[in-house]
Amino acid sequence: MVGAGQLARMTQQAAIALGVELRVLAQSERDPAVLAGCPFVLGSPGEEAAVRALAEGADAVSFDHEQVPVELLRALQSQGLPLEPRPQAMLFAQDKHHQRRELAQLGLPVPPFALTRSRREVESFAAEHGWPLVAKAPRGGYDGRGVWLLEDPAQAAGVLESTDEGLLLEPHLRIELELAVLVARSRSGETASYAPVQTVQREAMAREILAPAQIDAGTAERARELALEIARAIDATGVVALELFLTPQGLVVNELALRPHNSAHHTIEGCLTSQFEQHLRAVLGWPLGSTAPTAPAVVTVNVVGGERGEDPRRNLARALEVRQAHVHLYEKAPRPGRKLGHVTVCAEELELARAAALEAVALLEGAGR
Amino acid sequence: MVGAGQLARMTQQAAIALGVELRVLAQSERDPAVLAGCPFVLGSPGEEAAVRALAEGADAVSFDHEQVPVELLRALQSQGLPLEPRPQAMLFAQDKHHQRRELAQLGLPVPPFALTRSRREVESFAAEHGWPLVAKAPRGGYDGRGVWLLEDPAQAAGVLESTDEGLLLEPHLRIELELAVLVARSRSGETASYAPVQTVQREAMAREILAPAQIDAGTAERARELALEIARAIDATGVVALELFLTPQGLVVNELALRPHNSAHHTIEGCLTSQFEQHLRAVLGWPLGSTAPTAPAVVTVNVVGGERGEDPRRNLARALEVRQAHVHLYEKAPRPGRKLGHVTVCAEELELARAAALEAVALLEGAGR
Repeated sequence: MVGAGQLARMTQQAAIALGVELRVLAQSERDPAVLAGCPFVLGSPGEEAAVRALAEGADAVSFDHEQVPVELLRALQSQGLPLEPRPQAMLFAQDKHHQRRELAQLGLPVPPFALTRSRREVESFAAEHGWPLVAKAPRGGYDGRGVWLLEDPAQAAGVLESTDEGLLLEPHLRIELELAVLVARSRSGETASYAPVQTVQREAMAREILAPAQIDAGTAERARELALEIARAIDATGVVALELFLTPQGLVVNELALRPHNSAHHTIEGCLTSQFEQHLRAVLGWPLGSTAPTAPAVVTVNVVGGERGEDPRRNLARALEVRQAHVHLYEKAPRPGRKLGHVTVCAEELELARAAALEAVALLEGAGR
Repeated sequence: MVGAGQLARMTQQAAIALGVELRVLAQSERDPAVLAGCPFVLGSPGEEAAVRALAEGADAVSFDHEQVPVELLRALQSQGLPLEPRPQAMLFAQDKHHQRRELAQLGLPVPPFALTRSRREVESFAAEHGWPLVAKAPRGGYDGRGVWLLEDPAQAAGVLESTDEGLLLEPHLRIELELAVLVARSRSGETASYAPVQTVQREAMAREILAPAQIDAGTAERARELALEIARAIDATGVVALELFLTPQGLVVNELALRPHNSAHHTIEGCLTSQFEQHLRAVLGWPLGSTAPTAPAVVTVNVVGGERGEDPRRNLARALEVRQAHVHLYEKAPRPGRKLGHVTVCAEELELARAAALEAVALLEGAGR
């Protein structure tokens, strides 16, 4: 796995169960997956020699982020490295404009969009769709970084000046709910989908996952079908996380990730097969596992670093007083706004699960200290 | 953790979630917990320097087996090592005669027993209880090793000659069911108990765990209370596995282990807190987690090495066709009679769970190849 963050760390737990050796490309010996005991190669994801060293003898090379340049991925693929997913699929997660353009051509529901490089193009898009607009860096953004809400032409001009790549513009959609769907597609072509979840954002970051999403069965089924259709259309392998907006006009594609994803951490305890085990099965060409839920309601809440730099490890014993909480800590140095862990609670009812998860997270984040 | 077998390996998965560093004392770099990425000290569990090196800076020193001589444990304790459990408790798991004698003095239900060193003592015990008798090595036996069924005086004489330590004799009880109960006792004194399970033996090894045990509520409650009473009476810390016989006269203590145990592997997916996480919480003095089951029925079946030396890793992809099976492989070299992994299935009904678990295990063990 290229990358050694919390996604690789949790993949290691699944790899231990299956007896799989998970080697990671780490930037530091303190990376979360290295601290979880993964054998590792030190290096940058942009460095060909490092990725080649990582891949030596591997059955599959997978990713916990989108930072390997697609040109390097293509070169490595041509050298015969077993990249899963393949570069042409990975490009959909790396390049938002490519994703929008290709999915639109397939007739899939993406919002109106334009890649703009000038004030005139921005104003022309605004004339059609109205202010405010949403602008995104075509590459490299996450957790709200690389996304701007543009209220007027002056603000648009300021953001345009800060970038050379242009801006992907979209209308400011009326969003009723934010949803996420995880699907998996094996090297063999087999697919599986998980029930859609609802994500709750705070400070531009998904803080809560509510499973199942409170939507009607038809919408849930359409969301799963849409994610499967995309996974097949782009020839994805491994797990694919599709973030969706539910709008008055129906479902609209937001983001796409070709790796385990924050919006599916509830699958560890809340589904028969976790996203991490499913990813391993898919990239190794093994049969996919059951995606059935294990409880009527499952809620996951992220533990995020606060302004005071509180370390959740110091608060762990207090949080464990919430007896039914499944606590996951990533052993990351605490920094404001950084995801440091998560808590999952399974229960009979969503509000019970949510209350317990929020309580444990508040304790981990230092409430009452 | 002293020991680096599958119990330490699965404890590592729980340690990753909690951000705990689990250092192990390993005999080889191919030990299951080392392959799972635990930092390790190489050495023998009987070697003081090795155990001291392991313990350097640790918050607690725990065990995945009973092989550290109690004299060494006492010496290490007197040097201030934070042993959990303490040597006086560990002796109950190491020395079956000590266990029987002390539990009998506490008025707890142990079978009639005698430590015998001569044919005359054996025959006197047989005169009282009748042939056949069960003989056990007072120390060191497991998985049927160190246990003999003695049919007559000649057989008794043969086994007596093979040992210097004497034999612990017991009547051959009429056993209706074999049960196991897991409890945990924290350094803080807090306790928790899991619902009793039924164990099914084949070739003197527990091959199946059925949860919950098919016994009445009163018997289940007595079994839990008995295990808690023992844990408190012997001042145990960590998890304690109590194996029980259900006889026409009621519950009788069979074996006692002061560590995570094969009879509780179903807790990984089948209870809110796995035995491995519970053990970490208990030995670190943290609050214990909920022991509630996650499904109406949970069955775990061991994967055991066969005569042909079949390696379950070779059969993994076939076994994963059983979609709801949770497969755990220990990365041990296959040898006849060796535990190489286990499979757990959660379901609405015990027979459904059992059928699926047995199917996956048969595939892993090479059925149909």
